[in-house]
Amino acid sequence: MSILVVGSVAFDSIRTPSGAVDRCLGGAATHFALAASFFTQVRVLGVVGEDFTAEHEAIFHARGIDTNGIERVAGNCFHWTGEYRENLNEAHTLRTDLNVFEHFQPKIPDAYQDSEFLFLANIDPVLQHQVRRQMPRVRMVCGDTMNYWITGHQQGLARVLRDLDVLLINDGEAKLLGEEANLVRAAERIMRMGPKALIVKHGEYGATAFFGDHSFPGGVRNRFFRAPALPLAEVVDPTGAGDSFAGGFFGYLASQPEITPGQFKRAMFYGGVMGSFAVERFGTERMQALSREEIDQRFASFQELSHFDAE
Amino acid sequence: MSILVVGSVAFDSIRTPSGAVDRCLGGAATHFALAASFFTQVRVLGVVGEDFTAEHEAIFHARGIDTNGIERVAGNCFHWTGEYRENLNEAHTLRTDLNVFEHFQPKIPDAYQDSEFLFLANIDPVLQHQVRRQMPRVRMVCGDTMNYWITGHQQGLARVLRDLDVLLINDGEAKLLGEEANLVRAAERIMRMGPKALIVKHGEYGATAFFGDHSFPGGVRNRFFRAPALPLAEVVDPTGAGDSFAGGFFGYLASQPEITPGQFKRAMFYGGVMGSFAVERFGTERMQALSREEIDQRFASFQELSHFDAE
Repeated sequence: MSILVVGSVAFDSIRTPSGAVDRCLGGAATHFALAASFFTQVRVLGVVGEDFTAEHEAIFHARGIDTNGIERVAGNCFHWTGEYRENLNEAHTLRTDLNVFEHFQPKIPDAYQDSEFLFLANIDPVLQHQVRRQMPRVRMVCGDTMNYWITGHQQGLARVLRDLDVLLINDGEAKLLGEEANLVRAAERIMRMGPKALIVKHGEYGATAFFGDHSFPGGVRNRFFRAPALPLAEVVDPTGAGDSFAGGFFGYLASQPEITPGQFKRAMFYGGVMGSFAVERFGTERMQALSREEIDQRFASFQELSHFDAE
Repeated sequence: MSILVVGSVAFDSIRTPSGAVDRCLGGAATHFALAASFFTQVRVLGVVGEDFTAEHEAIFHARGIDTNGIERVAGNCFHWTGEYRENLNEAHTLRTDLNVFEHFQPKIPDAYQDSEFLFLANIDPVLQHQVRRQMPRVRMVCGDTMNYWITGHQQGLARVLRDLDVLLINDGEAKLLGEEANLVRAAERIMRMGPKALIVKHGEYGATAFFGDHSFPGGVRNRFFRAPALPLAEVVDPTGAGDSFAGGFFGYLASQPEITPGQFKRAMFYGGVMGSFAVERFGTERMQALSREEIDQRFASFQELSHFDAE
């Protein structure tokens, strides 16, 4: 089944302890779409400038991703310049050039209307809400956000949260949004804002899903689920790891005939798998070279990493 | 089978966001022994002062712990005063009174000589080494240490590490000891110092076991294993969580007829279970009130928390 993702298609200039790249293809929608494309049909809604060439578009098409919803306008793509120092969990933004993204007004192509899954990547909650409203019949909506929107755009964000099935954010964002230092209590407060489930990403320690009540699709009954992250000897570039997690998670769910508790848990593991690949090289490099076979092998490693056989 | 633990039996004065206690029973050997006592016979080697009363000793005896190796001398017990602020992963030491611990010279009772498992809790590596040398026939040795010994007592620590089956430390200690910011590479360096396996505790994110080679008891073949921690809505007092983890882990292993890879993995889960109980109340309170049935129930929760059924 199809996923529609709305978010940034951008260029990133990144420095990490492993090296540096200048203006590589990036953006939340890009990372999400590439990861999800291994599981299901993906459609992208976004805006790019004249510096987005046929070569860049070919990266999407090589993975069968529908780019008809990427609007082209005069100017340059959104451009993020940042670095990671020894602590690879923390990005330092050196410069943000919104460029064509500044005046982005999402227009959903007619051919996208039958998308059954919707991912609202990390953009202005006002835009997230607009897209959500124009897709009233989707089966499941998943969203991301960040500190900037949590602290400065609370009203807009509240409207988006009310209508989400799953919110995917990291530890710091969850504690900020829930106004609570304890993650369990923060999660409970966040789910009272709307989301039926919350997935909190812990970087190198994996991710935890919190379930608010029994109305969640599939009727998950435990209150929590934890998926591990693979211990990695080298993280080349953490950019896009969270979006790749989201792509693996949501892509796998969208590929299933129905969403059971077991599928939700497996989806968390696929999220971890895709995040672990994303950080192995700069930008989209690893996703471009990835095969489904490698994904299945790593999924098996994740299971071995954290499961023991029943007695 | 019996475990001999050498370490501190102490009093702690602790302040946390949940409250405060003055001079409650604590110390690494105490927390370890109480947790391990739910699985196997435990013997304690340590030293106490005149402030250690029959009432304190009764806490050990109620759990069937052998206290014949606890020497009584003039003076007061080791006394730690500390606090935890909003970040419960970080202890702030306000005061350390070594008292009778300053001149501790471990003397192993004859009746302890047939102990098959040895746990070297976090004390001066010189003492850890002395005890290890006097127990040449133990089947398995597990040890702990901390930043203070890693930075200031490298030679003594190196001698202890050479002879360990399993070293249990936290993230920060592992990175300091391995002189590496990346945990996988730090673990590889540490295992080259001696330990056949390394367990790194991640606090609220669980723990990871690293296996150096195939010579590990039980022949564990994967390179890593990750056990989760239970998301807790309230952590009353983190003191002793790591020692309780060690007690659950090592106590379970010592209770098994043989150590298989599956048992090692289960032992990691029991470690997490005992750590999760320890933090629910101040000092040893929770362990004193705990039942084996509660342990088994929580073990099942840990499995549900992180496992999905095979297809």
